[in-house]
Amino acid sequence: MFAGAQVSLYPMTDEFVDVILSSLTALDPWRDRLRIETDDISTLIVGPPEVLFPALRDLYAEAARSGHHIVLRATLSRGCPGEPDDPICQTAALANPSEPIAARQKAALGAVSDAAETRQAADAQFSLYVMGAGDHMDEIMGCIDYLKQSGTFDRSKNFCTRLTGDAGPVFATLQEAFCRFGRPEGHVTIDLTVSANSPSKR
Amino acid sequence: MFAGAQVSLYPMTDEFVDVILSSLTALDPWRDRLRIETDDISTLIVGPPEVLFPALRDLYAEAARSGHHIVLRATLSRGCPGEPDDPICQTAALANPSEPIAARQKAALGAVSDAAETRQAADAQFSLYVMGAGDHMDEIMGCIDYLKQSGTFDRSKNFCTRLTGDAGPVFATLQEAFCRFGRPEGHVTIDLTVSANSPSKR
Repeated sequence: MFAGAQVSLYPMTDEFVDVILSSLTALDPWRDRLRIETDDISTLIVGPPEVLFPALRDLYAEAARSGHHIVLRATLSRGCPGEPDDPICQTAALANPSEPIAARQKAALGAVSDAAETRQAADAQFSLYVMGAGDHMDEIMGCIDYLKQSGTFDRSKNFCTRLTGDAGPVFATLQEAFCRFGRPEGHVTIDLTVSANSPSKR
Repeated sequence: MFAGAQVSLYPMTDEFVDVILSSLTALDPWRDRLRIETDDISTLIVGPPEVLFPALRDLYAEAARSGHHIVLRATLSRGCPGEPDDPICQTAALANPSEPIAARQKAALGAVSDAAETRQAADAQFSLYVMGAGDHMDEIMGCIDYLKQSGTFDRSKNFCTRLTGDAGPVFATLQEAFCRFGRPEGHVTIDLTVSANSPSKR
């Protein structure tokens, strides 16, 4: 299995380079379980979902603490057929598809309610894509049903879903959506935007 | 058919609000053929691909002209099964799937080489998702083959493809990828990032 994300941090300030560099220290506790490569558009972070999502949460929360309007953007993927297996991605976090959707929803909701708070608010918007044939619409509908009960659900928009709340439960909600729906060997992607300190907030 | 995008502009400057507002004037010539709604995370732009992509190109080029490091981000979608048909999206731009892939590649390459230049450079990174069963891997491979010949292809990265060049041919390359591959009634999405004036450029 291969899993990871292309991640970018956009601080809306003249000091954007300093904000990015100081926020990256939040990845330090996770670095030995991730592979990280940066270019001028994004940073590739390869690793299992149970490391990747907390690492993104900590990167986001550190940037949000700057007080500037910042946006974290990520293209997350697992099981892309074009990518080679990588031992660093080995994970026990993906759901057993023979488990009924209702049981997976219950486990996902438990994980979200157990998530520790970061004391940083997060306004997130994401699209989840479950590739391939078969029962993928059942999986997506099951996931949407879970999201609506998650406590972080804000609203549906065209092409995407909005979540809001503390960054802890918001990133936990995303992790559970990514892991518990769609076949474990299937190709699942998320197109994610998380915004902090926006002056045009509602 | 329903087509459109959730679009955000991220200027990495203290004057980000001014840069966003002045760049939005670039959409004026296209407004009567689009439906536009804004919230604090993104702007929904609904309309046919042959209007949507030139409008995004002009928005990007206007923001890039500010000289600041700016990023345009968009989640593009056509044919999402959850969205209602909308007359404003009526389009003749989608390919006839009974036309062989080679003929569609040739037409796409012609459109890119005919694209007018904007005199603004664009570094783009995108993922194209063709949802559903059937021949979608053939369509994706046909699209990748076209991209490599497009003149704007930079390189493949994990989870995405990089394009570089003048914004005119770069956005034309994206439009052709979105329209000419995958069934016209199918669900196709693009996760797009376009960057200008990055200080860490290569």
